[in-house]
Amino acid sequence: MSKARAEAFSDGVFAVAATLLVFAIPTPAPNVALASALAGEWPSYAAYVISFATILVIWVNHHTTLDAMSTFDRSLLFLNGFLLLTVAVIPFTTGVLARALQSGHDQTAATVAYGVSMSVMAVAFTVINAYAVTRHLFTTPFSLLGFSMGLLAYPLATVIALFSYEVALAMYAATAIFYAAFPLIREAQLRR
Amino acid sequence: MSKARAEAFSDGVFAVAATLLVFAIPTPAPNVALASALAGEWPSYAAYVISFATILVIWVNHHTTLDAMSTFDRSLLFLNGFLLLTVAVIPFTTGVLARALQSGHDQTAATVAYGVSMSVMAVAFTVINAYAVTRHLFTTPFSLLGFSMGLLAYPLATVIALFSYEVALAMYAATAIFYAAFPLIREAQLRR
Amino acid sequence: MSKARAEAFSDGVFAVAATLLVFAIPTPAPNVALASALAGEWPSYAAYVISFATILVIWVNHHTTLDAMSTFDRSLLFLNGFLLLTVAVIPFTTGVLARALQSGHDQTAATVAYGVSMSVMAVAFTVINAYAVTRHLFTTPFSLLGFSMGLLAYPLATVIALFSYEVALAMYAATAIFYAAFPLIREAQLRR
Amino acid sequence: MSKARAEAFSDGVFAVAATLLVFAIPTPAPNVALASALAGEWPSYAAYVISFATILVIWVNHHTTLDAMSTFDRSLLFLNGFLLLTVAVIPFTTGVLARALQSGHDQTAATVAYGVSMSVMAVAFTVINAYAVTRHLFTTPFSLLGFSMGLLAYPLATVIALFSYEVALAMYAATAIFYAAFPLIREAQLRR
Repeated sequence: MSKARAEAFSDGVFAVAATLLVFAIPTPAPNVALASALAGEWPSYAAYVISFATILVIWVNHHTTLDAMSTFDRSLLFLNGFLLLTVAVIPFTTGVLARALQSGHDQTAATVAYGVSMSVMAVAFTVINAYAVTRHLFTTPFSLLGFSMGLLAYPLATVIALFSYEVALAMYAATAIFYAAFPLIREAQLRR
Repeated sequence: MSKARAEAFSDGVFAVAATLLVFAIPTPAPNVALASALAGEWPSYAAYVISFATILVIWVNHHTTLDAMSTFDRSLLFLNGFLLLTVAVIPFTTGVLARALQSGHDQTAATVAYGVSMSVMAVAFTVINAYAVTRHLFTTPFSLLGFSMGLLAYPLATVIALFSYEVALAMYAATAIFYAAFPLIREAQLRR
Repeated sequence: MSKARAEAFSDGVFAVAATLLVFAIPTPAPNVALASALAGEWPSYAAYVISFATILVIWVNHHTTLDAMSTFDRSLLFLNGFLLLTVAVIPFTTGVLARALQSGHDQTAATVAYGVSMSVMAVAFTVINAYAVTRHLFTTPFSLLGFSMGLLAYPLATVIALFSYEVALAMYAATAIFYAAFPLIREAQLRR
Repeated sequence: MSKARAEAFSDGVFAVAATLLVFAIPTPAPNVALASALAGEWPSYAAYVISFATILVIWVNHHTTLDAMSTFDRSLLFLNGFLLLTVAVIPFTTGVLARALQSGHDQTAATVAYGVSMSVMAVAFTVINAYAVTRHLFTTPFSLLGFSMGLLAYPLATVIALFSYEVALAMYAATAIFYAAFPLIREAQLRR
């Protein structure tokens, strides 16, 4: 089982999950004015954008992680499958989040559920990283910051969601932005 | 992160988004005569065809653009992700458009929403082009016509939709046809 | 635009369309006995199997056709897009067919709609073949039988559906079986 | 038709089917408390995890099987298509299973339906293996255990489901775990 194969399958899951996010945006009911209904759906658009950016960032990190590995074994194949399982569930948690934000109730439960799902994803990613570190599979210097950021941010945001779902949502978005910017920081560090 | 990887992921999103367009065609209600119900769904078929052709054209232009680039960097990866985010939303706007055209009300709002979505897509494409131009990434002559056409046509059609949604729809279709034919024009120009 | 790219995108659409066929099988209503409801859904399973086999056959023929071409140009790219548009619509026509067969009314309209959709697909395939023949793109002997079979069978079955939807369904299945067996026949011919 | 092509198409179906499993998890009704509704959906999460793990294992076994083949012919292409047809139906059987487990009635019928679907999948896989064995296509030693496990476990679990759906569900999960662990056992055997 080559690494290329695992990447192709993973890319498929990432691409399909990202594209299925669109179902999180509800089609407006037929008996309301469409213009105001579409305008009132901005929480769904926000949930769509945050989740799309998050999947994009997971995909980029996934490739960076696999590219840094010298070999890829059968255990990694199933650890990778565990990560993909958590990615494929994002359209569901995004849909739940979008509906709660739009309906104006149950935002706390939806934001916590979203955070729990992302926390499990971060655990899956960390298990892959930890496995690769202990087996000395990484050929490039190991970054503790990138390693632990999602594992810190998502559970923390989940707890915060119990008190303020708005702050938690901002943290979900900020985590995606951090990971988008992080490689630039890391590259700068490596260059020094 | 190689250009080939970004292309494979993008192709996945393009292929899934194009195939999900079929959900814009509503299954007829069970209590009506199927033959007349299917015949009455021609506005949905038209919306499906216009969006499928548009995604096909974006896909072709996407490859032409990436093929013309000498290198592909991390910033382009996220600019590309922004473009894909706007492509993955097309099944939603197409569904909204199909339903409005078929129900015979709210056509203006649906056509404007479709145009806004396509305009944002054109902006995303232009940002990719502009980034590549300023970084001197293009290895082939730069075409101002292809560069600016979508950026002009989609916002213009969106404004026109406020007055006549039929003209706007014709412009959406015409823009896809222009881009299908445009490379032939450009090739002819390059050959001269 | 390389042929490999067009094939990868086409494979994506084929794979997604084949997998979306599962939505043609309705989830039984919650208030009926599940065992008998699932048993009563055999028309949906039949529609699923016929369409899955048909998409598989189109995919195989698509590759055989493209493999036999020495070059692939921009016009073929859009003719290919037209074919994919007709493939991506199969989950819709299959769903309509499954529901009509299961509900026991409107079978004629549904079978005709299915046949019209497949006929347009056959036309799209024929246009690709005809374009390649007139441009002398084929590097292997041209087969008139494979060329014309779908173009004959689907419109004929569509007309027959007006009188007997059962015969038409048998013809849709037979056409898929013919194309599955045809290359073996053709290979035998070439070997002689 | 190269083996690489068949693998790419199969990977597409596997990735899409795995990602569509998320639709087996129902979005909670809007008029109930979201937190308890989400907590009460654990049977759906369990069905999702079992099916995702199963598709992952089928995908891994599929690649192992194809990698062990020296050649790939047209008959295998259609036998492979039969396998993919049984894989693409898993999101449906998983959805039926999830709803039955969650609603608390019809669990037997749903667990039997799931088992029948998996048994047909095991038959499809066995036919591929048997074809390859009789044609001497395998280049590595043949494993009777891996060959026959699914063919034994799924029909057996299906029969057991008639008496205890809980035991059957445990067997479905255990079969996935067996196949995840099996190659390690086999590798150890080959090394000796």
